[in-house]
Amino acid sequence: MAPAKLKIGCAGLGRMGKRHALHFLNRTPRAELVAASTPDDAEIQWARVHLEPYGVRLYKDYDEMLQQEGLQAVVIASVTTVHAEHAIKAIDANKHVLCEKPLSTSVEVSQSVVDAAKRKPHLKVMCGFSRHFDASYRDAWAKMDAGLIGRPAIFRSQTCDMLNPSGFFVAYAQFSGGIFVDCSIPDIDLALWFFGQDSMVKGVVSSGITAVQPGLRKYGDRDNAVGIVEFYGGRIAYLYCSRMMAAGQDDSTEIIGTAGKLTVNAQPMANLVHIYEASGIRREIPPNYYGRFEQAFVTEANEFTHACVEDGPLPMKLSGAVQAVKIGCALQESLRSGDRIWFDETGRRVEREMLSG
Amino acid sequence: MAPAKLKIGCAGLGRMGKRHALHFLNRTPRAELVAASTPDDAEIQWARVHLEPYGVRLYKDYDEMLQQEGLQAVVIASVTTVHAEHAIKAIDANKHVLCEKPLSTSVEVSQSVVDAAKRKPHLKVMCGFSRHFDASYRDAWAKMDAGLIGRPAIFRSQTCDMLNPSGFFVAYAQFSGGIFVDCSIPDIDLALWFFGQDSMVKGVVSSGITAVQPGLRKYGDRDNAVGIVEFYGGRIAYLYCSRMMAAGQDDSTEIIGTAGKLTVNAQPMANLVHIYEASGIRREIPPNYYGRFEQAFVTEANEFTHACVEDGPLPMKLSGAVQAVKIGCALQESLRSGDRIWFDETGRRVEREMLSG
Amino acid sequence: MAPAKLKIGCAGLGRMGKRHALHFLNRTPRAELVAASTPDDAEIQWARVHLEPYGVRLYKDYDEMLQQEGLQAVVIASVTTVHAEHAIKAIDANKHVLCEKPLSTSVEVSQSVVDAAKRKPHLKVMCGFSRHFDASYRDAWAKMDAGLIGRPAIFRSQTCDMLNPSGFFVAYAQFSGGIFVDCSIPDIDLALWFFGQDSMVKGVVSSGITAVQPGLRKYGDRDNAVGIVEFYGGRIAYLYCSRMMAAGQDDSTEIIGTAGKLTVNAQPMANLVHIYEASGIRREIPPNYYGRFEQAFVTEANEFTHACVEDGPLPMKLSGAVQAVKIGCALQESLRSGDRIWFDETGRRVEREMLSG
Amino acid sequence: MAPAKLKIGCAGLGRMGKRHALHFLNRTPRAELVAASTPDDAEIQWARVHLEPYGVRLYKDYDEMLQQEGLQAVVIASVTTVHAEHAIKAIDANKHVLCEKPLSTSVEVSQSVVDAAKRKPHLKVMCGFSRHFDASYRDAWAKMDAGLIGRPAIFRSQTCDMLNPSGFFVAYAQFSGGIFVDCSIPDIDLALWFFGQDSMVKGVVSSGITAVQPGLRKYGDRDNAVGIVEFYGGRIAYLYCSRMMAAGQDDSTEIIGTAGKLTVNAQPMANLVHIYEASGIRREIPPNYYGRFEQAFVTEANEFTHACVEDGPLPMKLSGAVQAVKIGCALQESLRSGDRIWFDETGRRVEREMLSG
Repeated sequence: MAPAKLKIGCAGLGRMGKRHALHFLNRTPRAELVAASTPDDAEIQWARVHLEPYGVRLYKDYDEMLQQEGLQAVVIASVTTVHAEHAIKAIDANKHVLCEKPLSTSVEVSQSVVDAAKRKPHLKVMCGFSRHFDASYRDAWAKMDAGLIGRPAIFRSQTCDMLNPSGFFVAYAQFSGGIFVDCSIPDIDLALWFFGQDSMVKGVVSSGITAVQPGLRKYGDRDNAVGIVEFYGGRIAYLYCSRMMAAGQDDSTEIIGTAGKLTVNAQPMANLVHIYEASGIRREIPPNYYGRFEQAFVTEANEFTHACVEDGPLPMKLSGAVQAVKIGCALQESLRSGDRIWFDETGRRVEREMLSG
Repeated sequence: MAPAKLKIGCAGLGRMGKRHALHFLNRTPRAELVAASTPDDAEIQWARVHLEPYGVRLYKDYDEMLQQEGLQAVVIASVTTVHAEHAIKAIDANKHVLCEKPLSTSVEVSQSVVDAAKRKPHLKVMCGFSRHFDASYRDAWAKMDAGLIGRPAIFRSQTCDMLNPSGFFVAYAQFSGGIFVDCSIPDIDLALWFFGQDSMVKGVVSSGITAVQPGLRKYGDRDNAVGIVEFYGGRIAYLYCSRMMAAGQDDSTEIIGTAGKLTVNAQPMANLVHIYEASGIRREIPPNYYGRFEQAFVTEANEFTHACVEDGPLPMKLSGAVQAVKIGCALQESLRSGDRIWFDETGRRVEREMLSG
Repeated sequence: MAPAKLKIGCAGLGRMGKRHALHFLNRTPRAELVAASTPDDAEIQWARVHLEPYGVRLYKDYDEMLQQEGLQAVVIASVTTVHAEHAIKAIDANKHVLCEKPLSTSVEVSQSVVDAAKRKPHLKVMCGFSRHFDASYRDAWAKMDAGLIGRPAIFRSQTCDMLNPSGFFVAYAQFSGGIFVDCSIPDIDLALWFFGQDSMVKGVVSSGITAVQPGLRKYGDRDNAVGIVEFYGGRIAYLYCSRMMAAGQDDSTEIIGTAGKLTVNAQPMANLVHIYEASGIRREIPPNYYGRFEQAFVTEANEFTHACVEDGPLPMKLSGAVQAVKIGCALQESLRSGDRIWFDETGRRVEREMLSG
Repeated sequence: MAPAKLKIGCAGLGRMGKRHALHFLNRTPRAELVAASTPDDAEIQWARVHLEPYGVRLYKDYDEMLQQEGLQAVVIASVTTVHAEHAIKAIDANKHVLCEKPLSTSVEVSQSVVDAAKRKPHLKVMCGFSRHFDASYRDAWAKMDAGLIGRPAIFRSQTCDMLNPSGFFVAYAQFSGGIFVDCSIPDIDLALWFFGQDSMVKGVVSSGITAVQPGLRKYGDRDNAVGIVEFYGGRIAYLYCSRMMAAGQDDSTEIIGTAGKLTVNAQPMANLVHIYEASGIRREIPPNYYGRFEQAFVTEANEFTHACVEDGPLPMKLSGAVQAVKIGCALQESLRSGDRIWFDETGRRVEREMLSG
C-alpha cells in the first residue's frame, strides 16, 4: 500500500499562492492538495480552472477551509499582513504550517507565531526561507561545514529586484515593512544560517537613497540601501538591496572565511546559453525571484511534506525567522534615523555606552 | 472531474529505467505509472520497494506487461539491443512509445521502428533525445529561429564522458555500436534540429585514438574521436566525443551563423557556487549525463504524456532518429577505414566521383 | 630631431620603487630615468646592477638627488611617512611630481602637498592612483560617461589582499594608517572618480574584525572591515577591505546606475587559462596588487610623462587625493569608535543634529 | 656602461609593420630601431612622422637598407609573398631575422629559408608565431609540461576573424594561400608546440563552406572550414577557421590530456568589464588579432632581441614553421579535393594503402 499523503490546503492564491498550490498539486508526490482559500474573486476563478478539476475544494473564507475534514497542513501565501494571524489559527487548529516569509513585519507579531508553535510541539511549523532549499546554497553550506573556507567571518549578500517603473513598489511600501524587511530578510536568514542560527546581533547600521522612486520617502522607504550587521563573536554581514536592477533579478552571496571564500550566483544567468553578436557576448538573467528559485520552492514543498508525514526534523528553526525580522526592522529604522542600533548579548536593545566591548 | 491520466509502463529498470520510472511516478502529473518490467532480479527487488507500494505492477516479462489491461503507453529503457524489438511490439499492441535513444545501432533496424510507427499513425512514437527538452537548448533554438544569428552554417558539439578507469567502456564497446553511435548520436540529433530535420548528409569523415583504453581497438572502437559531417546546402557539423574527461560530463554545443553564434554549456558547471581557495577559483561540474540533463528528462516525460493524452503533436519527427543513427554509423565506419563516406542528395551512399558538386 | 625626453629621478627603491624605476627606464619611451635615491644599502646594491649601467646616477640622499642638473621630475615611491615631505621638497625645487598613494595618512599633511602644488601651477603634481590608468576601469568609466547605466547611484568596491600569515601586516599597521587608509584609498578614489571628483561626503560608518591577526587591535586596526560612505546628492559607496583572501588579490568594483550596472574584475583571473581536473574547473588569480595592475602603472608613467613634456592636463585633480584620505581616515576612526561621522555640505565635520536633512 | 643594443631594421610598414616598428622603437629596451624600408609612399609618409624623428633611417628599397652600416637584424613584415626572399637576403647579409608568419604559402619556399638559416648557424632566425609569447599559452604549456593533464592527446583550436563585409577577404584570397594557410597556421604551430615540435603528421582532411563570401570559391577558398590533423603516436588536432565572427576575434584552444584539459581563451573578453543592462549581461571582445595578442608581439620583440644580443637560444625551431605550412597547405588541398591526404612516418606524401597501420 502506498504511504499516506499529506492533505494540505493553500491560503492565498496571489502570485506566490498560485505557485505554491501548483507545486503541492503536481510536484510534491507525497502531498495531496485538497483545499485552497482566497477572498479574491479573480483568484477563485483561476482556481476553478487549475485546481478544482483535480479535487481541490475552494473557499473564500480561510477559517472555513481550516475546518475541512482530514486537512492536515496549510501553506500560507496570503498577504504578509495576515501571515501571522493565519499561521496562529492553523496552529490552534492543529495543522502543520508552511508560512511564506516574513512571518510578520513586526518582531512582536512574529514572536507570537513562534510562541503559538511552542505550545504545539507535535506540529511542524516552518517559515519558507526558500534559499535554504536551493541546491547552490546547500552546496556552499556543505562546503563551509566541511571546513573548506576555515571559519566564516564576513558575509555579503544582495537581493536586487528588476526595475519596475510602474510605481508598484511605492504603493507596496505602505505595508511591505520597507526594503530591508521585504528584500533583505532572506539575506539575513542566510547570514544566520551560515554563521550559525544562534548568532547574536550586536549592532546594525544602514544608509539608503531613492534613485528612481522618490515617492518611497513618504513611507520612510528607499529603493536602494546598504547595511552592516555585526554579530557577537567577530562576524560581520553586509547587505545590499535594490529595486532598480536593469538586467533582472540579481541576487548573490559571498561567504568569506579565514581560509577561503564561497560565492553563490556571483555570475547570474538564466540558463547555459551565451549569445555572440556584434555588441559582444551576452547572457540573460532571470527576470524575478521565482525565475531564480523555482526549484528551491519545489524542494521546500517536498521537504516540508516529508517532515510532516514522517514526523522528521525541519531543516531550520522557526525562531530564526524572528531574529531575521528583528535585524531587518533595525536596519530599516537605521535607514530612517541614521543611527546605529546596538544590542547586548542577550538580544536587548541598548545604548552604545552600555556595551562591554 | 480531473482530466484522465496516461497509464504507462516502464520497460527496463537499469540506471536510466529507474529514473524514467520515478519521473513518471512522481514528476509527471498527467501520467500514472501502472507497470514496470525487467528480467533482472535485483531490479525487481528495487522495484518492490520503490514502485510496487505506489500501485505499480511488476513483470519479469515485457510481453506480459504489454497485455496489462488499460495500459496506454510504454517508456522503453531496456538495453539498446532490444529497444527496437520492444518498440515494435508496443506499437503492434497499440501503445504509445517513448523509446530511449538510439532506436538501434543499426540503420535498418531503426528504420523498421519508423515503419511500424507509420502503420499506426494514431500512436505517439518518440525517440527520447533529451536535449530537445533542455531549457538551454530550447532557448538557443528559439533565438536562432528568431534570426538572432542569421543563417546557421557551422555546428560544433561534443559529448565527453567522465573518465572511468574500471574498464567498463571496453566491455560496453561490444554492443554500444561504437563511440560515435553511443556518444555522438545526441549531438547529431542536435545538428539536425538546428540545421532543420530534413537536412541531407553529404559526407562524413572521422579520426580517433585510444588514449586511455587500448582494449577498445579490438572492437573497432576508440576512446576519443573527432568527426566532420557535411550537409547539402552548405552546412557543416563537427563533433568530438570522449571517454576521458577528468572533471566530469563536459557536453557543449556551438551554433555559428552568418550573423552571430550561440553556445550552450560552453562553461560547464554543476551549480552556481564558486570556491576561492589557495589554488585559485574553482567550480565543480556534473559527474554524468543525468547530472546535466535531469530536468530535461522530466520535461520529456511530461511533454510526451501531454501529447498522448491530448493527441497533440510530438516535438520531433521519429525519422530524425534514423538519420542520426545513419550518420553515427558512417562516422564510426570512417573511424575504422580512414575513408570519407559520401551520400547523394537522396541519401544513398555513393562514391565521390558520382557526386555532382 | 627626436622630441625631448623627461629627465626623471626615482625616490625610494623598495618594492614599488624598483618597479617605478624600471618602468621609467624601459617602458616609458618619452622619459629618461637619470637618477634614483634610497637610504637603503641593499637597494643601492640592486640599483648598481639594474640601473647604473643604463646611465642612472644613484644617491643615498634624496635632497642631493634633487640638485642633479637637468632633473625635471621625480617619482616618489619612498615609505608613506615621507611621501609628503619628499613631494613638497620636489615642488619647491621646481620638479614635476608623481607621488605614490597616499600623499599621507593625515588629511592635514596631504593638504599641505596640495597647497605646495598650488603655489607652482606650472608643475604637474599627481598622486598615483593607478586604477585610473587601468584599461578596464577606463572602459567602465567611458561607458558610464556615455550614459550606458543612467545616473550612477551605488558604488561597491573591495580591495582584498592575499593572506600573509607572516605577521607582516601587524608590524605594518603601526604606520600604515589602518586598513581603510592602506587598502581602501584606491576604492575611495574610484568612488570619487565615478561619482564626480567634486562629490561631497555626508557620512561614513564602518565595522571591522580581526579574523586572522588579533595583534592588529593594539594599533586600532582590523584585518577585515566594511564601510558605508554617503555622499550629498543621493549616492552611496560601500567598501570592503581584507587581508585574508586565500586565492590571491581579489579587487573588484561595481557601479550601479539607474539604468544598468558595470562591474570591473568581478570574476578575477590571472590570465585566460582554465584548468579542467578531477576537482572541477579552476583558474588562478594574481597573487598581489602588481599582478593585477602592472600595465596600469606603466600607462601611468607614460601619461604623467606626456603631460610633463607636452604641458598637457593631468587625468585627475590632486585635491581628490586629500578627499580620499579624509574619507579613509574617517572610516578608520568609525572602525574604532563605532560612531558614524557626519560632514556638512562644506566638508566640515559636524554632529548629526547639525545636518539639515 | 650600458649593455649594447641590437640595431634592427624593419622591412615593410603596413599594418603589422608599423606595429613591429613601434614595438622595437619604444617597447624593446635592448633594441634600437635604426632603419625601416617600404616601397609604399603613404607608409614612408607615416614613417617620417613616427620613426624618422627618433633616429630611424628610411628606405624605399629593402636591399639598400640591408647595407646600412651597423645593422644587425631585421624584422620582416612585408607582404607574405616576399617574406622568404627578404629573409634569405638578410641571412645572406649576416643579419638576424625575425620573420612574420608564414615564411611562405609554399612548403618548398619555406624550406629554402630554413636551408639558408642552416648555412649561417651563428644567426638567430625566427618565424614570428606570436602565440608562443602569449602569457596564457605559456602558462598552459607550462602546466601541461608539469604533467597537470597527463599525456596530451587531443588538441582543438580555432582562429575566427571578425566578419568583414567589405569584400576584402575575397581580394585577399588570391595571394593568402587560403583560409587554412592564412588563419590556421598559428593553430597548427600551437599543435606542434603542445604535442612536441617533432610530431609527424599522418593524415589531414577538411571541409569548408562559403557562408558569407561566395566569391571565395573562384580562388578555391572558403570562409569557414574545419579540419582534422592526425599525428603519428596517437594524437589528433582539430581546427576551425572562420571569417564571419560577429562579436570580434574569437580564437581559442583546448589541450585535452589523459588526466585533464587546459583551455586558453575559451571565454573571450576585451577586458575585465561586464555590462548589466536590460538585455542581460554583456562583455565585449577584441575586434582583431592584435587586440588579443598585442602584449605577445611585444614579448616576441624583446625575446628575439635578447637571444640576438646574448647569443641565447630561440624559443622555437625554425623548421616547425615549414611543418606548419605543410599541414596548412594539405588542409587547404583537402578542402578543394575532398580527399584525405596521407603521409608516411618520414613525412612523405603517400597513398593510404602504403601506410602500415
